[in-house]
Amino acid sequence: MKFSQTFIPTLREVPADAVIASHRLMFRSGMIRKLANGLFAYLPLGLRCFRKVEKIIREEMDAIGSLEIKPTVIVPGELWKESGRWTAMGESLLRVKNRTGAEFVVSPTAEEAFTCLVRDELNSYRQLPLSLYQINTKYRDEIRPRYGVMRGREFVMKDAYSFHSDEASLDEHYQAQGRAYRAIFKRCGLTVIPVRADSGAMGGQGSEEFMVESEIGDNTLILCRACDYAANVERAECKSDPGGPSSIAPIPPIPPIEKISTPDVKTIAELCDFLKTDPKHFIKTLIYKAEHIERDRSSAPLPDVREEFFAVAIRGDLDVNEIKLAAVLKAAQVSLAADSDVERITGAPVGFAGPVGLASVPLVMDRTVAEMKDAVAGALEKDVHFKHVSCGRDFNAWLLADVRTVKAGDRCPVCGGELYEKKGNELGHIFKLGRKYTQAMNVHYLDESGVSHIPLMGCYGIGLDRTLASIIEEHHDEAGIVWPAQVAPYQVIIVPISYRGAARECCDMLAARLEAAGVELLLDDRDERAGVKFNDADLIGIPWRIVVGEKNLAAGRVEVKRRAGGETKLLDIEAACRGEFLET
Amino acid sequence: MKFSQTFIPTLREVPADAVIASHRLMFRSGMIRKLANGLFAYLPLGLRCFRKVEKIIREEMDAIGSLEIKPTVIVPGELWKESGRWTAMGESLLRVKNRTGAEFVVSPTAEEAFTCLVRDELNSYRQLPLSLYQINTKYRDEIRPRYGVMRGREFVMKDAYSFHSDEASLDEHYQAQGRAYRAIFKRCGLTVIPVRADSGAMGGQGSEEFMVESEIGDNTLILCRACDYAANVERAECKSDPGGPSSIAPIPPIPPIEKISTPDVKTIAELCDFLKTDPKHFIKTLIYKAEHIERDRSSAPLPDVREEFFAVAIRGDLDVNEIKLAAVLKAAQVSLAADSDVERITGAPVGFAGPVGLASVPLVMDRTVAEMKDAVAGALEKDVHFKHVSCGRDFNAWLLADVRTVKAGDRCPVCGGELYEKKGNELGHIFKLGRKYTQAMNVHYLDESGVSHIPLMGCYGIGLDRTLASIIEEHHDEAGIVWPAQVAPYQVIIVPISYRGAARECCDMLAARLEAAGVELLLDDRDERAGVKFNDADLIGIPWRIVVGEKNLAAGRVEVKRRAGGETKLLDIEAACRGEFLET
Repeated sequence: MKFSQTFIPTLREVPADAVIASHRLMFRSGMIRKLANGLFAYLPLGLRCFRKVEKIIREEMDAIGSLEIKPTVIVPGELWKESGRWTAMGESLLRVKNRTGAEFVVSPTAEEAFTCLVRDELNSYRQLPLSLYQINTKYRDEIRPRYGVMRGREFVMKDAYSFHSDEASLDEHYQAQGRAYRAIFKRCGLTVIPVRADSGAMGGQGSEEFMVESEIGDNTLILCRACDYAANVERAECKSDPGGPSSIAPIPPIPPIEKISTPDVKTIAELCDFLKTDPKHFIKTLIYKAEHIERDRSSAPLPDVREEFFAVAIRGDLDVNEIKLAAVLKAAQVSLAADSDVERITGAPVGFAGPVGLASVPLVMDRTVAEMKDAVAGALEKDVHFKHVSCGRDFNAWLLADVRTVKAGDRCPVCGGELYEKKGNELGHIFKLGRKYTQAMNVHYLDESGVSHIPLMGCYGIGLDRTLASIIEEHHDEAGIVWPAQVAPYQVIIVPISYRGAARECCDMLAARLEAAGVELLLDDRDERAGVKFNDADLIGIPWRIVVGEKNLAAGRVEVKRRAGGETKLLDIEAACRGEFLET
Repeated sequence: MKFSQTFIPTLREVPADAVIASHRLMFRSGMIRKLANGLFAYLPLGLRCFRKVEKIIREEMDAIGSLEIKPTVIVPGELWKESGRWTAMGESLLRVKNRTGAEFVVSPTAEEAFTCLVRDELNSYRQLPLSLYQINTKYRDEIRPRYGVMRGREFVMKDAYSFHSDEASLDEHYQAQGRAYRAIFKRCGLTVIPVRADSGAMGGQGSEEFMVESEIGDNTLILCRACDYAANVERAECKSDPGGPSSIAPIPPIPPIEKISTPDVKTIAELCDFLKTDPKHFIKTLIYKAEHIERDRSSAPLPDVREEFFAVAIRGDLDVNEIKLAAVLKAAQVSLAADSDVERITGAPVGFAGPVGLASVPLVMDRTVAEMKDAVAGALEKDVHFKHVSCGRDFNAWLLADVRTVKAGDRCPVCGGELYEKKGNELGHIFKLGRKYTQAMNVHYLDESGVSHIPLMGCYGIGLDRTLASIIEEHHDEAGIVWPAQVAPYQVIIVPISYRGAARECCDMLAARLEAAGVELLLDDRDERAGVKFNDADLIGIPWRIVVGEKNLAAGRVEVKRRAGGETKLLDIEAACRGEFLET
């Protein structure tokens, strides 16, 4: 392809909002242009790379027997009402009403569409397992789209959905997807961190996120310095802290619980000062509002509970992880209750909530509190606290769960090593959904004995745009992109110092010979200064650059430069025509 | 690919709304399933065929130097307001408002997005011509979607847009697109009728539609029995009728215009009875309301006129073609005025409109009226008509134009032969848009001397879903689809009478050898009766069927059947493995 016959509008300037390398370089190299906030058009160069990533993903999906289909992008709102996500997805879901008043969704994912298709076709266990995927347009109404295609509103996702008659079959395909994902990212030249992740509004147990490290990542990862433990902070666990109250043994006899007056004490710090104790000996009690709580659907199909209040008790030096809490409560979302609700529920001003005697709402207790046998806590009265509070003796939990936020310095739940934090971006995600959708949407099959069952389901997504941008994040330098060969738009760029006379003939011959051998190449036939052409070649990041200049040409040679590393060497024209440099 | 490892849910039954062959067969063969009215999912078999069509289109576009890009499906409403189509497109345009109140369009075509992209990049004449295309999802809110993917709401379209500095360059690319379209349809095995077409809301002059004949076509084509004239009735022209008033020569002296009383005469037929004349001697005058009239944008950028009234005079035996009329008036739409408007404008009850003395609205006159020198017409008074009305003497037109509806039996405008009608479906459409969008959206480039110009534009679309369905319409029989090889999902289907023992080994070997040679094939390994498998093979329409049965196998042979035509022959297994039958 001749440079003048394609459309690669390279730029020296970048828009002010392009703060990350991939955004800047995709823009400067003419890969993308912005149509509106969060809406990007891929120009020919960008689309070539995009298709390379797409092809790698398609090949790996086909290799594990997932079958490609193409549902619509616009899907009936009805299906989303059946699954419950019409309300649960909140405002990031783009809803449309057409002229007849019918409601539609611009798909952000496609659990509903795939489940609906399978529901209509599934009869027998012999049809299972079944894995289907699409590579298709998605839309998520990001409130603050930024970082170019890394966090756009419209994007392309490969999403696969599998259906199974038993856990073993689901697990087998889940593992196969995991292997396919590792293969995909490897072929794309990406270093990913696979982490256990919270499955959020998707529901179900068993999931793995594929992250890339990124300063602007919207996920915090918790990693262990000693082993390969890696988790999203949304779901990370940790070991009990050595030196915490539980390690003090034997426990001395605990005095009876006792009310103490704590006037003008507003914060945990003030209270600790006042009582000369440590936040680790305080039971912090918070009132939460949980929304859209999913009930067990196995029996009667009850509607979800719209909102309900809970008290959460946790050791005073720790924070509640709201995502873990929401998961424990099977709620779409939890948030701290308003002051007026806290006052109504605790019967006291804000600041005096405690687990003892709290009867108006269920008490969720973090595991750390179970170990607290002589603690301080609010007494549900203004300016009053309890001391010598003992879990099990003075109060009990409605639900004991791990809801603490793990942070750097905590201990690895696997090996006890020190945990640290990194920012990451999610490129892919595989889930075991269980029966969340198949149950809500009433999918059944008959087993060998004619008994009806609800199939298990898994889902597996990769964002293509974000994967492409992440490749650039990992493979660039000062001068531009440094494409790994597998995803490069072209393998070779031929740059004549001047596209005239013998140099032109040589370029044309090189291009013809290499293209005939199946090498994708760009011939920079523009009437530009050599410097401009060299800069553009570096910016665009083509793996191999062949420079055709008069002096070398006179000696029957061309200069070949590898973009990654920058080594150059002189090669006989005939060897260059045979693409011998490509093998090195 | 083994049948059991893909997902081809064939059916004997069809849904009641599947009235055309392609809809029935795509559904029965498991190519598509319905998600909602007008929204279809392609299952694996359907998607394979879809991709074949896509590949053919992509190759032909690339061959003429059009460059593929990928804008978004959801585009900012702002761009559509700039072009004026936000209002002009009416209710078939799906508009969305997001959570921030921003307005978007789910693209039905993409003139705006492409024009916007080019506007931002275009500086110099050296960048022209530029032709860009996409193959992407589109949505049109059909009020009555039907006939399966033939007229769905969501569909995929290849749409190309080209930009030029002069007419010659536009015409050159327009011709190249036309040739590419002919090549595409030929490679798809389709017989298309290229017709001159009205360009409707798209604007501009010079356009060609590629139609396939279809009973359920939504277009009426006017064709000539004697030459290759073909036109959409929306735009068809014809020769003046022999024997019409114009052919009576020499014209006798015409008496002066004269009022006559015509009490109780309601219709043209009654009037003709009353006056003992023929509708051909009557000037029918109709009052039309035109909406969204485009003004000339070359000078001041005036807003479009929202609505305006016109009188249209036409020979009494003819009908006004509202699409031709709208095009002549540069209106988005025209419709007959309400009775109250007619009474206000003509100053008389409905039924007495006439061209003489009508001053309140502009008069558009069909060419047929220009020839009328002694006619009858309404006199703008209740129960009164004029006779001896003479065009040019008694009244003049504001605009003389061809606005008649051509019908079967009229004379070909090219050769005078007899015209006839056919129903057709539009698969593709190429247009010269002129400066409609580039002017409205303010696109400029500088010429050699640094003078700013607005580029010319062309647009070129093909509906992929409809093309695929049309292939089935043209290539099927009682038993099912009969795919042309180029778009067949697989080239060969291997059907064992029973997939066991030696037959199984033979099937596996055949499959392995043929697949190794690059032949796409399906091996029907299902545990079904041979009859069921034969029926499915016919239904799915794979070009070549290889039957592996015990008896032939014992003689070292398999039976090869061609789906088109149905010839069978016995072939040595080795010859079958070498795919020798494929050459025949």
